[in-house]
Amino acid sequence: MARLETFADGVFAIAATLLVLDVRELGHWPSFVAYAVSFMTIGIMWLNHHQLMNQIGQVDRRFMVATLGLLMCIAFVPFPTRLLAERLTHDGARDAALAYGFTLTITAIFFSIVWFYAARGRRLLREDSDPRVVAGISRSYLPGIGMYLTATLVAFASPSASAILYLVIAAVYVFESSIFGGAQSEH
Amino acid sequence: MARLETFADGVFAIAATLLVLDVRELGHWPSFVAYAVSFMTIGIMWLNHHQLMNQIGQVDRRFMVATLGLLMCIAFVPFPTRLLAERLTHDGARDAALAYGFTLTITAIFFSIVWFYAARGRRLLREDSDPRVVAGISRSYLPGIGMYLTATLVAFASPSASAILYLVIAAVYVFESSIFGGAQSEH
Amino acid sequence: MARLETFADGVFAIAATLLVLDVRELGHWPSFVAYAVSFMTIGIMWLNHHQLMNQIGQVDRRFMVATLGLLMCIAFVPFPTRLLAERLTHDGARDAALAYGFTLTITAIFFSIVWFYAARGRRLLREDSDPRVVAGISRSYLPGIGMYLTATLVAFASPSASAILYLVIAAVYVFESSIFGGAQSEH
Amino acid sequence: MARLETFADGVFAIAATLLVLDVRELGHWPSFVAYAVSFMTIGIMWLNHHQLMNQIGQVDRRFMVATLGLLMCIAFVPFPTRLLAERLTHDGARDAALAYGFTLTITAIFFSIVWFYAARGRRLLREDSDPRVVAGISRSYLPGIGMYLTATLVAFASPSASAILYLVIAAVYVFESSIFGGAQSEH
Repeated sequence: MARLETFADGVFAIAATLLVLDVRELGHWPSFVAYAVSFMTIGIMWLNHHQLMNQIGQVDRRFMVATLGLLMCIAFVPFPTRLLAERLTHDGARDAALAYGFTLTITAIFFSIVWFYAARGRRLLREDSDPRVVAGISRSYLPGIGMYLTATLVAFASPSASAILYLVIAAVYVFESSIFGGAQSEH
Repeated sequence: MARLETFADGVFAIAATLLVLDVRELGHWPSFVAYAVSFMTIGIMWLNHHQLMNQIGQVDRRFMVATLGLLMCIAFVPFPTRLLAERLTHDGARDAALAYGFTLTITAIFFSIVWFYAARGRRLLREDSDPRVVAGISRSYLPGIGMYLTATLVAFASPSASAILYLVIAAVYVFESSIFGGAQSEH
Repeated sequence: MARLETFADGVFAIAATLLVLDVRELGHWPSFVAYAVSFMTIGIMWLNHHQLMNQIGQVDRRFMVATLGLLMCIAFVPFPTRLLAERLTHDGARDAALAYGFTLTITAIFFSIVWFYAARGRRLLREDSDPRVVAGISRSYLPGIGMYLTATLVAFASPSASAILYLVIAAVYVFESSIFGGAQSEH
Repeated sequence: MARLETFADGVFAIAATLLVLDVRELGHWPSFVAYAVSFMTIGIMWLNHHQLMNQIGQVDRRFMVATLGLLMCIAFVPFPTRLLAERLTHDGARDAALAYGFTLTITAIFFSIVWFYAARGRRLLREDSDPRVVAGISRSYLPGIGMYLTATLVAFASPSASAILYLVIAAVYVFESSIFGGAQSEH
């Protein structure tokens, strides 16, 4: 289980750090915003993965393969981020906004697959995991899919509005983590 | 031994995450398929390396040098992946398919070198390693070489058929891990 | 907490190692100096983060989100480094020097946010953390912001002088760590 | 000390894996040889660093700063590797061979700085470190500097001969590790 976390941490850290390559090559203001939004989005996803793994007591190969699928999505994020940074103020804004939203929606779906596979019947949970925390995580995952799917569909009407929604969702997650998450601490 | 795993995890994670650079630069459909196939192939190889290391109780320098050779192959995968993504629908498809298959065949051979060096006479195995698990790993490695070698040779007849076989092999490994691997779990 | 450190180590290591991409592409002398200065700056920041985490006994989500903000700055350093390497002897030297200094000033501010959030009322400190070490870290953080802010503002008068100051600050930190930091050791 | 190793492992792994970017962009035979030689060279250096750290019982800031200097060299290796791969069969072969050899000579010098700082008067060694192993490491470091310096100077006479020597040195280290290093094992 430790190695799964090391591997996952590596993918999260590399995907987040590769985002700067777009800023290096593009260097205009949308690339800065895209960098900040995608870095914090991947960062919050890392935080959620960390929180998820805190409840896990054992892993099996299915869980690992599902995690690989999740990481495949995370490592893909630099691609639609670049698309969006490149095209938001040009042609192809709609396709870029759709690609970004589609990637994050699929990522959110994989988060649910990983989590509900582990949590169903407490299959892979730690024996001492707190049922309220488990229920809290379960409740929080489905709205995530809904939010990203909504923001994606908005791209058909307005790619800019869709991009603003991605920023708002990231800000909400950062804000929520900072305000409500302060009370619980871990060693 | 912990550091060998950290180093290996780093190489696996970086090789898998660098694959997105091709999608960023090419951005057409074969690059998406190549990304997914190579990410899952490296991911499954990471899983196999994890499973292999679970049976290891100690390491020596020969084992480490053989592991470096294996990692040299893993870190190389983004190159033939890009070739294949770039050329599958253009000139040079055969060379690209051969390069891809050749890399994965050599990788599979290095997996066998690492494993059989450790397992021969139980040289580096954990004292409590399960002989059935050890025999199972030994049995599963040679067909891997055979499958990749076959898919590589098919490229002489048809590069597209070869590429489809790489996809099928990756899918088989994902499927097999998900279906048959679910029962065993680890802490 | 271990995973926060693994993730942070990953971002520090990748950001530092990506700096070589600029040297690969530019290959003139300012890119070598920029590589050395930025690598050692990120290295010393990693050292400071390590020293900071040594005093931490527990973490909460606010601390983690603040750390993500810090890492977002660290991972951004390759961008202004490239700018500075590219433009120091050309047009746009002022903008490049401002971008570099601005990034490091914000990074220093995030270091203070992370540290003072943890240290205030000893909120997240280890129970056995040494008050003198804690006070020493607190004292050392504000001058860091001041030094980088000063060097940034100097860019309005002379971008070259500003760039030299960044080099001097890095050298001071390396020197200070080597001379005064030798006495304390850790297991 | 654990975090120093994680950070170091990250830099080694990323530097080694980034080497594939040159093959991706150049794709001719010297880039393949350069990839294999540099990957195994970084890999063997990682092995040596691992062996070195095995003897270390505690670290101080000077040791860490010296290690940062060493890692700055390791992370730089992809640059002269690319130079050599690009220019070996073209103009500028001499400069490329000199840059490659100079980088590896400086790296070998930093290895000695790190090691002799730790080993002098057994300053940072583990209490139970074996004096014969310590003496063995001390004896092995200086010839490394000499070999790389010699190969570098040969570039003035013949860049190709110099490049072949780099390959031979890497092969010698791999061979020596495989043949003589097999006996000692670690848990």
